[in-house]
Amino acid sequence: MSETPVEKYRAISPAEFFYKYREIAGFSNPARAIYQTVRELVENALDATDAHGIMPDIKISIRKVDEIQEFYRITVEDNGIGIPPDVVPDAFGRVLFSSKYVLRQTRGMYGLGVKMAVLYGQMTTGRPVEVITSKPGFKRIYYFKLRIDVNRNEPVIIERGSWRKNREWHGTIVSITIEGDWGRAKPKIKEYLFKTAIVTPYANIVALTPDDEIIYYPRIIDKIPRPPLEVKPHPHGVDLELLKQIISSHNYTSVEELLIKGFQSIGEATAKSILQQAGIDPGKPVSELSDNELLSLVNTLKSMKDIRAPSIKAISPLGSDVIIAGLKRVFQPEFVYAVSRRPQAYQGHPFIVEAGIAYGGKTPMSDDDKPIILRYANKIPLLYDEGSDVTTMVVKEDISWDHYMVSFPAPIAILVHVCSTKIPFKGVGKESIADVPEVRKEIKLVLMDVLRELKKYLSKKAKEEELKKRAEHLAKYIPEVA
Amino acid sequence: MSETPVEKYRAISPAEFFYKYREIAGFSNPARAIYQTVRELVENALDATDAHGIMPDIKISIRKVDEIQEFYRITVEDNGIGIPPDVVPDAFGRVLFSSKYVLRQTRGMYGLGVKMAVLYGQMTTGRPVEVITSKPGFKRIYYFKLRIDVNRNEPVIIERGSWRKNREWHGTIVSITIEGDWGRAKPKIKEYLFKTAIVTPYANIVALTPDDEIIYYPRIIDKIPRPPLEVKPHPHGVDLELLKQIISSHNYTSVEELLIKGFQSIGEATAKSILQQAGIDPGKPVSELSDNELLSLVNTLKSMKDIRAPSIKAISPLGSDVIIAGLKRVFQPEFVYAVSRRPQAYQGHPFIVEAGIAYGGKTPMSDDDKPIILRYANKIPLLYDEGSDVTTMVVKEDISWDHYMVSFPAPIAILVHVCSTKIPFKGVGKESIADVPEVRKEIKLVLMDVLRELKKYLSKKAKEEELKKRAEHLAKYIPEVA
Ligand SMILES: Nc1ncnc2c1ncn2[C@@H]1O[C@H](COP(=O)(O)OP(=O)(O)O)[C@@H](O)[C@H]1O
Ligand SMILES: Nc1ncnc2c1ncn2[C@@H]1O[C@H](COP(=O)(O)OP(=O)(O)O)[C@@H](O)[C@H]1O
Ligand SMILES: [Mg+2]
Ligand SMILES: [Mg+2]
Ligand SMILES: [Mg+2]
Repeated sequence: MSETPVEKYRAISPAEFFYKYREIAGFSNPARAIYQTVRELVENALDATDAHGIMPDIKISIRKVDEIQEFYRITVEDNGIGIPPDVVPDAFGRVLFSSKYVLRQTRGMYGLGVKMAVLYGQMTTGRPVEVITSKPGFKRIYYFKLRIDVNRNEPVIIERGSWRKNREWHGTIVSITIEGDWGRAKPKIKEYLFKTAIVTPYANIVALTPDDEIIYYPRIIDKIPRPPLEVKPHPHGVDLELLKQIISSHNYTSVEELLIKGFQSIGEATAKSILQQAGIDPGKPVSELSDNELLSLVNTLKSMKDIRAPSIKAISPLGSDVIIAGLKRVFQPEFVYAVSRRPQAYQGHPFIVEAGIAYGGKTPMSDDDKPIILRYANKIPLLYDEGSDVTTMVVKEDISWDHYMVSFPAPIAILVHVCSTKIPFKGVGKESIADVPEVRKEIKLVLMDVLRELKKYLSKKAKEEELKKRAEHLAKYIPEVA
Repeated sequence: MSETPVEKYRAISPAEFFYKYREIAGFSNPARAIYQTVRELVENALDATDAHGIMPDIKISIRKVDEIQEFYRITVEDNGIGIPPDVVPDAFGRVLFSSKYVLRQTRGMYGLGVKMAVLYGQMTTGRPVEVITSKPGFKRIYYFKLRIDVNRNEPVIIERGSWRKNREWHGTIVSITIEGDWGRAKPKIKEYLFKTAIVTPYANIVALTPDDEIIYYPRIIDKIPRPPLEVKPHPHGVDLELLKQIISSHNYTSVEELLIKGFQSIGEATAKSILQQAGIDPGKPVSELSDNELLSLVNTLKSMKDIRAPSIKAISPLGSDVIIAGLKRVFQPEFVYAVSRRPQAYQGHPFIVEAGIAYGGKTPMSDDDKPIILRYANKIPLLYDEGSDVTTMVVKEDISWDHYMVSFPAPIAILVHVCSTKIPFKGVGKESIADVPEVRKEIKLVLMDVLRELKKYLSKKAKEEELKKRAEHLAKYIPEVA
């Protein structure tokens, strides 16, 4: 036999995994990397502000810092809740560390974003990340310079310090230096900022680019959406592993207590009826549940029919006002309409789908098979992979556009926002939403809602034009009065 | 201010990460999960055989194992190289553990696949994975039953044992029990097996389904492609982090030794010229390199012009014979052609693109905007996300089909295979290839190669038909001889 390979078995850390396969998190080349870095930092900044009831003031700067090489220093400053100093090293230097692994709507969810940017900086320029932060009420400001030990998935602190605050500042400033391709990234970064501004009209966003251009989206409304709050798991989202995790991380004594305290939507009566159905004694100690009983409990929980829907405390939609304000700012349309649908659930996660539509005015002409589509998930604009997104599927396959008097190309833009405690993204790069039947159905329904209004408008407009034409025609026969 | 959320900071293990976000690895629902499980097991079985010069004998069984619940036991048996018993627990019970984190073409690459299936089984049915394995030459067969401790990302062995071999068997048998949706998964699983058989005509593949159907693809050729061999990194693929890893995992004394022994394609002369260009003394101890010197070394390595292309020892294309045999078996076409292009490189990774084309015969009619596309990456068929795959982009945007006398719908199928030491997949579910410029260009060129042949065939056919028509026409004027 000819030479054959030798198997070398090895475990790698999550840091090495995501360094090796960085393209799955959006860091595939210097152009994508600079776009993705801006995005991850801005999304962390917004999560630290609006999700805590703070009106965001976000300052972004992208500067070329080397004469010869394409090295860019990206700095994002926010006025958010800051980060406790003992947490900073892990937050920026340990892959899979996050405050967002809970049931609550946030832009981040993987505990990965900023670390990917740090890793990319480290592998292309060798420069560490710099963080300056202070929490509201803290007396000091803390400063860190750190890198990631890829093998161990651990932060390595290079420098740290702190100083007394002399004004009531709170927030975070993060600087990362990476090799980038500003020329190619520029249109995407501008599109990203512009689309972010559409859905955060309550934020001040200002960016200074390597071309010394200042991009400024001033705050245009003073109302901030209600912050989402953490909730407990809903029975419909349970599985064996989750149930075991809930049990092992609490000290519930009886199964009944486990159900009532470990889950949302379960009161005493519901707990009793669940346990009866699963054939388990309510007083049974949690530790004595057999594997079969656990399985039977899971099955009963998952399939309970008359249980309260998942709580929507944890999600925070935009509302039609924000959507309309955003669409007006951009397209100055002759017709605009928006609607938020009622909450629905998939796999125990509550979600809300909202949509807006803009017609005419400065709305550009669409492609010849679909309208302009602005896609959002948990207030993040999605820019890539439109072709594989569920909204595109609905637009192309589930809607009879003829029925709404629309034929493409047309000056029509639609905006679709899905918000949830868990967005079913297709990848960790957060660029497109998977085809989940419950979500797809709601997107279809919300588009039908806004299209119905567009149709009314278009047919009224057609009628008026008809009347006007007739009036003009009649006018010819009326003798002019000199 | 109203109630605001409290940040709870937490690190999670890679097992918890992929359990939580299993949909990004293809485990989004019971239908996808059963398909993905079969796939991961079959791909491990093939990697353990053909990549080691063994003609694969693969036996798959999918059985319903519960009267009421949709629980399926999936077992895949191979005649491969087996797994050393001390490695089994990690291979099946530790996420991010693999023998494929090296520069060598394999179907697996993430160290994730089989663990995702184990996790899915654990969360839906609670059943552990069962593994039986023996390596060639080993005297015993080893048996394990294990689960994954999700919090710690560690295997938990439930049962283990071994017995003496009484015949020369080697290989691996893996059984995993998951909740599945066979009804919905069936067509995809059949398509998967069928498309796998196309590119592995040297394998015996037999599957027993829950409907008691036997699907059998017997071996039709006796030639097995040359096994790929591990290679060292190519200078064009280096970055600061990789350079540091190479340094810290070896004991090279001088920089010159580092270059010659740590990389492929670098001999003494090249090493000298690299170091001169980077301004580093060849005898300098590796440990004394400054950050700036490392960066300058990386830049020089990445941009070296006249350096040998990446070695293709590490990749194993199908070859036109295998592609033609495969297309004939399936479509019995009136015209078939295939070609392998010469190796190219992207980011230091060698890759080869191959394509086949089938026309007429039993080739079904295509859609009205493109041919039937069979996509492959490192011998894996890609079934989902066709719309966002680079091959689809080339087909739709880069090829003037008119020029080749093709207008759709047409009875045309194309097969495109990309093989490389690293496939730029868009996600860990391995369903589509990203738009990497070097790869896109080769796909375009290979399609032009096969289309040129199709055009020759089609114009010859058109001419013959023309002649035939003319002859028939003439025949009318020739008096019949009675
Ligand atoms: N600007 C910021 N303000 C406050 N906290 C931050 C900021 N940036 C990052 N963090 C903290 O660091 C954690 C890790 O961030 P990241 O790696 O981007 O993952 P994710 O956003 O998905 O949680 C966040 O969960 C958050 O707790
Ligand atoms: N059937 C098999 N025969 C031999 N080795 C196997 C088999 N299945 C799995 N393995 C080993 O277990 C490792 C982990 O498998 P997996 O989790 O699927 O990741 P990957 O295939 O990406 O390496 C493989 O790298 C291989 O070494
Ligand atoms: Mg983040
Ligand atoms: Mg993130
Ligand atoms: Mg595998």
